[in-house]
Amino acid sequence: MDDSSDIARLIALMARVPGLGPRSARRAVLHLVKKRSQLMVPLGNAMQAVAQSARECLNCGNISTHDICPICADTARANGQICVVEDIDDLWAMERTGAFKGRYHVLGGTLSAIDAIGPEELRIPRLVDRVTTENITEVILALGATIDGQTTAHYIADHLSGIIVSTLAQGVPIGGELDYLDDGTIGAALRARRQL
Amino acid sequence: MDDSSDIARLIALMARVPGLGPRSARRAVLHLVKKRSQLMVPLGNAMQAVAQSARECLNCGNISTHDICPICADTARANGQICVVEDIDDLWAMERTGAFKGRYHVLGGTLSAIDAIGPEELRIPRLVDRVTTENITEVILALGATIDGQTTAHYIADHLSGIIVSTLAQGVPIGGELDYLDDGTIGAALRARRQL
Ligand SMILES: [Zn+2]
Ligand SMILES: [Zn+2]
Repeated sequence: MDDSSDIARLIALMARVPGLGPRSARRAVLHLVKKRSQLMVPLGNAMQAVAQSARECLNCGNISTHDICPICADTARANGQICVVEDIDDLWAMERTGAFKGRYHVLGGTLSAIDAIGPEELRIPRLVDRVTTENITEVILALGATIDGQTTAHYIADHLSGIIVSTLAQGVPIGGELDYLDDGTIGAALRARRQL
Repeated sequence: MDDSSDIARLIALMARVPGLGPRSARRAVLHLVKKRSQLMVPLGNAMQAVAQSARECLNCGNISTHDICPICADTARANGQICVVEDIDDLWAMERTGAFKGRYHVLGGTLSAIDAIGPEELRIPRLVDRVTTENITEVILALGATIDGQTTAHYIADHLSGIIVSTLAQGVPIGGELDYLDDGTIGAALRARRQL
């Protein structure tokens, strides 16, 4: 590195992007510098645009460029089903399968005694509200097959009544995270969901 | 993904960054969206700044924010030595060792019959010019221990006369790229360089 602080600063910031470390950040920045007009300028612009426009859906916690995300705003998806996921990448993974036609609720994590994460941190009260206000008949819990994920699933099931509460049953490996599964496995797990 | 085209476009661009693929680009963008003010805005700004300011040194091919890079502009480094590297990441790797006090010449690749890369594509004529105009007494060839790297080294040695032409001798593994070596290995290879 020379004393070009702009470049050194860009490398330091890139090294904080998940999936990149100090070495890969250097390689990435070198590539970006070589592809200034084709890649670095559009990428910088896209980051500015998303930083300006991205927001959490006030209803479900999904991220989009609207206060109410396109999924919540889509009346065709008001089919009485809410799929509860831990995080947005799980929502994206579920959407890629095309297997689910209802709406989502993004918890933002799982209950965790160790990390002191309780129901209020996880939009669980908001989920309970939505079940009544949106005429929900079924809540599908698409949480990871981890101890915290299953604890969270049972906590939610205990706090919902008068509706079907189901969970992805088949294909989610023990300890596995949803986002790492292939689309077919997620689809199969959805179809074979069992009622809690 | 929803229909938020800004976010989809950012993911597509991130997937083109070396070291990231489609899956890691989604995870990276999700992280950036969550860290908008702490990471995404500074990163977008840094990319804009570097895209505006970064340029190749007219003398050596290094990248900096000046037409003549700080290394070429530093009179303390006019010690009569030029270290020839294939690419800028090799220059960075060499600089991290702190073992070399002279100047650099970035070829931008190696001679390659298959890829039809000849001396003109590699700033070799410019290197020959510099040897005379900068009162160079030694050219150190820090090229990869690949067939193309060694072909290039011998081509350069054949076109320089009246000066010492040396090469990194010890520690560079066969088929290895300089940027993957640890700093100590590079430093040892530099100290044990042998004259061609
Ligand atoms: Zn929403
Ligand atoms: Zn220079």
